[in-house]
Amino acid sequence: MNVDGRPLRTIWPAADGWAVEIIDQTRLPHELQTVRIESLEQMANAISTMQVRGAPLIGVAACYGLALAVRRDASEAAIDRASAALCATRPTAVNLRGRIAEMREQLLPLPASRRVVLAYEHCERIADEEVEIGRRIGEHGLALIEKAAALHRRSPVNVLTHCNAGWLATIDWGTALAPVYRAHQTGIPIHVWVDETRPRNQGYLTAWELGQQGVPHSIVVDNAGGHLMQAGEVDLCIVGTDRTTAAGDVCNKIGTYLKALAAKDNGVPFYVALPSSSVDWSIASGREIPIERRSDSEVHEVAGLASNGRAGSVRLSPAESPAVNYAFDVTPARLVSGLITERGVCEASTDGLLRLYPERRG
Amino acid sequence: MNVDGRPLRTIWPAADGWAVEIIDQTRLPHELQTVRIESLEQMANAISTMQVRGAPLIGVAACYGLALAVRRDASEAAIDRASAALCATRPTAVNLRGRIAEMREQLLPLPASRRVVLAYEHCERIADEEVEIGRRIGEHGLALIEKAAALHRRSPVNVLTHCNAGWLATIDWGTALAPVYRAHQTGIPIHVWVDETRPRNQGYLTAWELGQQGVPHSIVVDNAGGHLMQAGEVDLCIVGTDRTTAAGDVCNKIGTYLKALAAKDNGVPFYVALPSSSVDWSIASGREIPIERRSDSEVHEVAGLASNGRAGSVRLSPAESPAVNYAFDVTPARLVSGLITERGVCEASTDGLLRLYPERRG
Repeated sequence: MNVDGRPLRTIWPAADGWAVEIIDQTRLPHELQTVRIESLEQMANAISTMQVRGAPLIGVAACYGLALAVRRDASEAAIDRASAALCATRPTAVNLRGRIAEMREQLLPLPASRRVVLAYEHCERIADEEVEIGRRIGEHGLALIEKAAALHRRSPVNVLTHCNAGWLATIDWGTALAPVYRAHQTGIPIHVWVDETRPRNQGYLTAWELGQQGVPHSIVVDNAGGHLMQAGEVDLCIVGTDRTTAAGDVCNKIGTYLKALAAKDNGVPFYVALPSSSVDWSIASGREIPIERRSDSEVHEVAGLASNGRAGSVRLSPAESPAVNYAFDVTPARLVSGLITERGVCEASTDGLLRLYPERRG
Repeated sequence: MNVDGRPLRTIWPAADGWAVEIIDQTRLPHELQTVRIESLEQMANAISTMQVRGAPLIGVAACYGLALAVRRDASEAAIDRASAALCATRPTAVNLRGRIAEMREQLLPLPASRRVVLAYEHCERIADEEVEIGRRIGEHGLALIEKAAALHRRSPVNVLTHCNAGWLATIDWGTALAPVYRAHQTGIPIHVWVDETRPRNQGYLTAWELGQQGVPHSIVVDNAGGHLMQAGEVDLCIVGTDRTTAAGDVCNKIGTYLKALAAKDNGVPFYVALPSSSVDWSIASGREIPIERRSDSEVHEVAGLASNGRAGSVRLSPAESPAVNYAFDVTPARLVSGLITERGVCEASTDGLLRLYPERRG
């Protein structure tokens, strides 16, 4: 997608052919700053501090982290250590683990001397794959937006989204926002309600990237979506997911479940966009997904732009009040109107998913 | 309730017998500062900028504003002008309008020369009335908490609340928090999940006042309540209300509806505590309640304590992104387990309310 009118990805190999560059998403939306990553440790830190974030992106970022580790030491023991360190960065995302497992399968059969070259090639290939997946999700989701536009015969189509499942969460295009970008490109008048998504405020990343592509949008606090849906101001919801079970339960950013309840209560379609790499085929119930609990300081303190124009933060809480900070919740499949995948839209159910992914049967 | 161990109300007559003092709630939770109010205009400003907030408190504050206006000019024309100015400060709260109407009924039959004395007496009386109402709501709500404690046989009882319906929203005791304070006083182990309540973050007021009374609590972002209820971490919800219809629809701080949906979906009782002065007997459906839309800047900017220990604020949004800021939403009666009023607990329905308030029949 574009930044200041020029196309950019969220992660790319540096000009020297071995280091990796990323957009530091903790500086957005106020400052676009890229960071050069030279080691496994730096990449693990970038993932856990959410300089890179979003299930598809952290899968690719973790692979680049593994490539950096292999460049330093291509032994099986080093690959094991690096894999464990990367998998520990974020417990909820499943495709991080999947991407690491897939890359290990590619690397380990090879002699150590050939592993470095293949590791980097692998990273570039999966990055391109993710871009193509986003493009396809965009095409399949576009049909849903076209349907909503035809149904309501009013302008614009109002889409509500939670968190950031845009190109910043992937390599390009995004998941939940890919259909929005495609609709905007094809000339469908569209407006996006952007949940700010406390505590990390990823909604402001969504607002920033929508603004960069010229897509009309309005930021709302996370509390507002229910009222907007009651008032008929939302035509459909589209969110991303960090992990979806084989039965269609959706684990996504904390608060997604509340919006899904409101959508159900008001007859608003609620779609989840995902690359199939974020499906956890090994579990049926969302209750089995470990929910990451992050630092309380993410609740107590808010970062932004201070009045002097520099990055700053303020403390919200009284000094003695504790906070509890769960990062995700699970939206049961019964509240999900459909899953938008790279192969098409399906029902959020075992049957629905297996119809699109028959190779997962049995 | 106590501040630093000493009892305090939220509004009181100054020692000089005519001015009024309030706690500036925009400075809380970081600084306890009182403000001297000497005119109608200052009081109207204090209400609209939310230095005083909470339905019961703004009702009393508005009456004091009218008393200050009457002190300057006791004519009927002046009372009319002052009443209109005060009613315009916050469009959603019904008891502000009710309290002003009630006071006008008292004042207008009197000769202008006697109106000032009566105006101040009236304010003191209704402030005491509100305190007594809070105490009674606390008693009636205590029984519900005792029931939850007996039912779950575990310690502590977990109560979730949204916004601030504590003593800061009233004169003393509070509405939603009054039962919590009574339970704490009677030795029931209790823990409160405090929604931060964006965009104004009144949850931090709740955390502050709970901390001052020694009640265990944890702050959570507004997105968290659904997950907490799914995980069995909430035994009951108690919230306040700005206006309740005669049929039991509840208008309260934006986001309340989402928590009520989650409570219903997880079998968690959802109670609303209210003085009957906040019932709008003239309407049945919550759809008839005008929803206040406040400044977008409340979304874009967050105030708190800067790292230098002073009040500060940061901007969250990218410069070009608009925001939309609705202050309230309506929770339909079907999602409300019961209303806790000064006369007892009733079903959220026309029948339920009329059983407690039979004088409102016909």
